[in-house]
Amino acid sequence: MTITTSSTTAITDSEIFSGHLGGKLSVELTTPLTTQRDLSIAYTPGVAQVSRAIAQDALLAKQYTWTDRLVAVISDGSAVLGLGDVGPRASLPVMEGKAALFKNFADLNAIPIVLDTQNVDEIVDTIVRLRHSFGAVNLEDISAPRCFEIENRVIEALDCPVMHDDQHGTAIVVLAALNGAAKFQGRSTSRLKIVISGAGAAGVACANILLLAGIPDVVVLDSKGIVSVSRTDLNTVKVDLAARTNPRLLVGGAAQALAGADVFIGVSAGKIDESYIESMAPNAIVFALSNPDPEIHPERASQYAAIVATGRSDFPNQINNVLAFPGVFKGALDAGASRITEGMKLAAAEAILAVLGDELAADKIVPSPLDPRVAPTVANAVAAAARAEGAGTARKGS
Amino acid sequence: MTITTSSTTAITDSEIFSGHLGGKLSVELTTPLTTQRDLSIAYTPGVAQVSRAIAQDALLAKQYTWTDRLVAVISDGSAVLGLGDVGPRASLPVMEGKAALFKNFADLNAIPIVLDTQNVDEIVDTIVRLRHSFGAVNLEDISAPRCFEIENRVIEALDCPVMHDDQHGTAIVVLAALNGAAKFQGRSTSRLKIVISGAGAAGVACANILLLAGIPDVVVLDSKGIVSVSRTDLNTVKVDLAARTNPRLLVGGAAQALAGADVFIGVSAGKIDESYIESMAPNAIVFALSNPDPEIHPERASQYAAIVATGRSDFPNQINNVLAFPGVFKGALDAGASRITEGMKLAAAEAILAVLGDELAADKIVPSPLDPRVAPTVANAVAAAARAEGAGTARKGS
Repeated sequence: MTITTSSTTAITDSEIFSGHLGGKLSVELTTPLTTQRDLSIAYTPGVAQVSRAIAQDALLAKQYTWTDRLVAVISDGSAVLGLGDVGPRASLPVMEGKAALFKNFADLNAIPIVLDTQNVDEIVDTIVRLRHSFGAVNLEDISAPRCFEIENRVIEALDCPVMHDDQHGTAIVVLAALNGAAKFQGRSTSRLKIVISGAGAAGVACANILLLAGIPDVVVLDSKGIVSVSRTDLNTVKVDLAARTNPRLLVGGAAQALAGADVFIGVSAGKIDESYIESMAPNAIVFALSNPDPEIHPERASQYAAIVATGRSDFPNQINNVLAFPGVFKGALDAGASRITEGMKLAAAEAILAVLGDELAADKIVPSPLDPRVAPTVANAVAAAARAEGAGTARKGS
Repeated sequence: MTITTSSTTAITDSEIFSGHLGGKLSVELTTPLTTQRDLSIAYTPGVAQVSRAIAQDALLAKQYTWTDRLVAVISDGSAVLGLGDVGPRASLPVMEGKAALFKNFADLNAIPIVLDTQNVDEIVDTIVRLRHSFGAVNLEDISAPRCFEIENRVIEALDCPVMHDDQHGTAIVVLAALNGAAKFQGRSTSRLKIVISGAGAAGVACANILLLAGIPDVVVLDSKGIVSVSRTDLNTVKVDLAARTNPRLLVGGAAQALAGADVFIGVSAGKIDESYIESMAPNAIVFALSNPDPEIHPERASQYAAIVATGRSDFPNQINNVLAFPGVFKGALDAGASRITEGMKLAAAEAILAVLGDELAADKIVPSPLDPRVAPTVANAVAAAARAEGAGTARKGS
């Protein structure tokens, strides 16, 4: 199997595996440790003074340890990429990759932590016990609906930024892209009829951020059809979702949801029938975000839709979480925020789009994932939003 | 307060605190991540192939993640240096320093993990849940007697190298130094009368390794006196120790233990009366290892003892764990060992001394902690011992 990207040569298996040999991360010293003097400062006896100072004033840990700039990337391996429940060991290469992206785009340190349990209580307890080891928590690839409870409980328990990226990273970039598409088309997002396919981590978070952004007509599909108050087979998360979405009280499946809709957002692993896309309103916007196989091939979708985006790097409009998470965590840590709030997420989505400026086009509704302007812009916007909400006003160690 | 070292200028507080500003570690990428192609290899879509391969064959995680060369330095902050129970946050600078030493001397990656619990079951459960996140566990600064149960249970639960360094790192270097001193004096260690002051983590481990090395006459002192079978106030660890030490059935305290003894090993925070050192046999060997304040000042001890060692860098014969732990873990990981056995510890002690060769002297019974020959020599010896015991014979991901 070979993977085709926008670069001309295909990437081979052997190139992929050698790129991961020995892992993708290393721990380095920030200052050399070569003389007896270095050793006396960094380790005994000097370090005792630093420990004693932190024992007397815990906030000094922010200044004199690496934790204030350290994100733990934590997974139980239960919902890894499109692979599903492959377990903690097999999730490690993804978590290492994520840690590498944190360094690359936001100059934050990050360490992969994979948990050999899928029990919600055990996961929460473990993270709480580890709390002083890092300054922020990026939850990753944890299956729904467990991810919702885990995230909520960890947020409540810790006084540092916590975000399940599969939910909110996706939602932030989707909102940015939708704003970009609507802006390009000269339309107001508030009047768009939106269909989200997928009621897992990403689908629920997308619905929430769209509602929060003032878009009332959001319809969510799960594997059984439209999530609606008339359904009797919904878990508590979907019952809540049903109460807040589907304002036209549609019933049925994708056919009923998409007929006349303006926007399709696919965040499930499923396929969508081409005829349903054809049934959408004129100037339709299609985000087929399943990876590596979009819900509909972007070239097919383009026959009916005015703007098409995917998660893939080999087509225009790549909707990739890396546009959000490095800057979101950097901004939150810069501001000394103890939460990542809805306001900070909205600010992040705005900032992603703002980077584009005049470059906005039908095939450029979001910046490239490699655009170096994105993370600093997002970080500044998130930090400003956090400070506006009062973050960092408690005494900080700086 | 200033700290004096062998370098001519004293180290100031401000020098120490600026040496720790922002922490002492950083996470770096092993290969750059700058092009779309890099991203497609290290992250999606390429990483999915690596995850899928590990899902099918868990042993491939050793090859394609960083865990096989990664040591978790884990503490609950309950017995940090001489500071005592300062908690997880205040222990962090020490754990970062330890991680830096792992990199510096053995080129191993290491991450500090501090636990916000001192409950034995919770500590063990937490480490077990984290098992797939790293390749070895260095337990650090956990108070006795909890440290014994925690280490035993974690060793039993994990199939990777686990060592509580305060116990075994100290014991290995003490054995190396004792062998060095005896060799210099032309004496056999097996006939030495040894007194260990301290029955905590280090004291118990020192007694065990000396017995294992064939030295039968070991007497251990705790804060109440000689640990002996006639005592009724001993915890289970000390009851076990009493049964295996003190062969002359001494009773009393330091005065009774040290009269006529050949070796004093101080690993408590207590002081020892100068007259007791004076009462030792001719050619006495004194290791006053309490840090930063030795049980007896080395200059006082030298009035009575032929060979004196401390834990301090500003006197000759510095007995420092850094002579052992980097090489021990490197050797164990190199050999694919699932345990750090007694044989591997003895091999490490031998290797430390072997580095000295003809340099052996009364004021050089162990190499300098900064001697770059030590860690590779120890690693080779430990790996050889591990392989001789059958380590790495299970299929490995080479």
